[in-house]
Amino acid sequence: MAYSNFISQLLKGNPRAAARLITFVENDIVASEEIINSIYEHTGNAYIIGITGAPGTGKSTFISTLTKIFVDQGKKVGIICVDPTSPLTGGALLGDRIRMKQNFSLNNVFIRSMANRGQLGGLARATEDVIKILDAYGCDIIIVETVGVGQSEVDIFKSAQTVIVLLVPGLGDDIQAVKAGIMEVVDLFAVNKMDFPGADKKVAEIKQMLEFRKNYKYDSKDLSEKYAKIELWTPEITKVNSKTGENFDELLELIKKHELFLKESGVISNYMKNRITNETIQILKHKLTKKVEQLLNSDKEIRKYIDQAIQKSLDPYSIANLIIKMLGLEK
Amino acid sequence: MAYSNFISQLLKGNPRAAARLITFVENDIVASEEIINSIYEHTGNAYIIGITGAPGTGKSTFISTLTKIFVDQGKKVGIICVDPTSPLTGGALLGDRIRMKQNFSLNNVFIRSMANRGQLGGLARATEDVIKILDAYGCDIIIVETVGVGQSEVDIFKSAQTVIVLLVPGLGDDIQAVKAGIMEVVDLFAVNKMDFPGADKKVAEIKQMLEFRKNYKYDSKDLSEKYAKIELWTPEITKVNSKTGENFDELLELIKKHELFLKESGVISNYMKNRITNETIQILKHKLTKKVEQLLNSDKEIRKYIDQAIQKSLDPYSIANLIIKMLGLEK
Repeated sequence: MAYSNFISQLLKGNPRAAARLITFVENDIVASEEIINSIYEHTGNAYIIGITGAPGTGKSTFISTLTKIFVDQGKKVGIICVDPTSPLTGGALLGDRIRMKQNFSLNNVFIRSMANRGQLGGLARATEDVIKILDAYGCDIIIVETVGVGQSEVDIFKSAQTVIVLLVPGLGDDIQAVKAGIMEVVDLFAVNKMDFPGADKKVAEIKQMLEFRKNYKYDSKDLSEKYAKIELWTPEITKVNSKTGENFDELLELIKKHELFLKESGVISNYMKNRITNETIQILKHKLTKKVEQLLNSDKEIRKYIDQAIQKSLDPYSIANLIIKMLGLEK
Repeated sequence: MAYSNFISQLLKGNPRAAARLITFVENDIVASEEIINSIYEHTGNAYIIGITGAPGTGKSTFISTLTKIFVDQGKKVGIICVDPTSPLTGGALLGDRIRMKQNFSLNNVFIRSMANRGQLGGLARATEDVIKILDAYGCDIIIVETVGVGQSEVDIFKSAQTVIVLLVPGLGDDIQAVKAGIMEVVDLFAVNKMDFPGADKKVAEIKQMLEFRKNYKYDSKDLSEKYAKIELWTPEITKVNSKTGENFDELLELIKKHELFLKESGVISNYMKNRITNETIQILKHKLTKKVEQLLNSDKEIRKYIDQAIQKSLDPYSIANLIIKMLGLEK
């Protein structure tokens, strides 16, 4: 096994081995398969917290403060910063995290940034594998941070037990942004910068949105999968000040409360099923797409179909159906 | 055929029929299949221009000016504004376009906004279908606009004959942003706001980047597919002032030059093959994912695998391989 030395070092808690293995799974899905296969039995111990919020909500300070508390409790923390918009923002998010790194010791806190550079098999797939590596590495808490960008983020958060959405007073658009996709997965709202005017107004706005949510029909099945047949968890709301640490005790209690809810309600087993199902879908998507690409580039019959499409006698939907038939998948 | 009335109206150039059909393909992939099937033979006449640029580069004014020139030439123009980041920006891009709509007559210019609200089968798939509807509707020029966001954008631009990237003097990050994914697909650079200081510097920076590009090895096969076995097109650069229209004659000449290059070099047939292949992949991805989701939710054998994964005796990569075997796709 090509990676066995790194893996045995990883299981001993060697941060350099973790870093190398993460690079492998980011760049090579064949490596991922081998690595995840070997470490899978050592995973499942970390508690995974997803954190998101629009730019300007103070995610960086919030995560630093939260991390410091966990470290003081003797916990080992992994932080994964995922930026699906990296080409757009020029990596602004990632720059913040480099500064964050300097505040912590490598023994307690492992920080890794991931940007969307056409990750093989998708960013959600790669993030899930990095979570597993940090889990096997011995992290008690894994924080997955993203900026709020629709579907890719929702996929990433399927791996998190507790998802926290960060808002701030005054920033008018952020609630609107949250509605779009994150509502499906949010468990806690934290209104950051609670010392700013308008913090209570923001809390009231969130409550109003949650009222609205009760009557809202979800297109996605995600929520019903996670919370299937269980009375819905109503997202909790708290105000915090990340700079002073004010109210973080309450935030931590709410995280604990949600963790307990997941266990006692039995939702945790839905969560696990949902997470594994989602991972399997991401992997299969990649494998099937690769297979189809190969077919499209090599199969003579299919090349003929494409020529027919150029001549307008066949359309892409019909080609797709012919390929599905060819693969024996039409039933 | 449920849509035959709309389709016959579409082919007569009825904008309301176009709008309705677009709504259908956005919301329902089964409808898409039926609609595209019927109109496909009427497509292939429009010239498709992809336009992108970071926020603040003046895309809205640029597109308005360009559209006005095409309309004055007697052309019918379709504009599709695609915002993959909509949940993040709160639809800033789309707001701009509503204002743009007021400047044109519905007879000559058809404007449609598309945001990433978990489009069934992906935003790239939906955009491609909307292009086809506007093509069949009689548009001579179809402008597809997006903000610069990595892979989803690159997929969307596979449908464009000519891709223009907008930059502005002074905005330091935009070149960096371009490097990330757009370099694979860009044909023309337009430095907007040429009256601002630093326009020539920006042109020099682009030239420098293009030099660098020559030595750059692409991970993606997209470029080699589009320009396969043909001497590479070196992206052209021009400066424009969208507010005054200055230099748009040069810009239009460069678009013409690129159109000619595609025809004379034979690249256009690679483009067509690449475009159809890409569409077919998008459609298959959707269909296969749906199939896998069904399997994962209903097949007893697979549910057993997921239970084993919860017990850590099987990992998601192994489940994916078992499903591929089950589907008879392992060879």
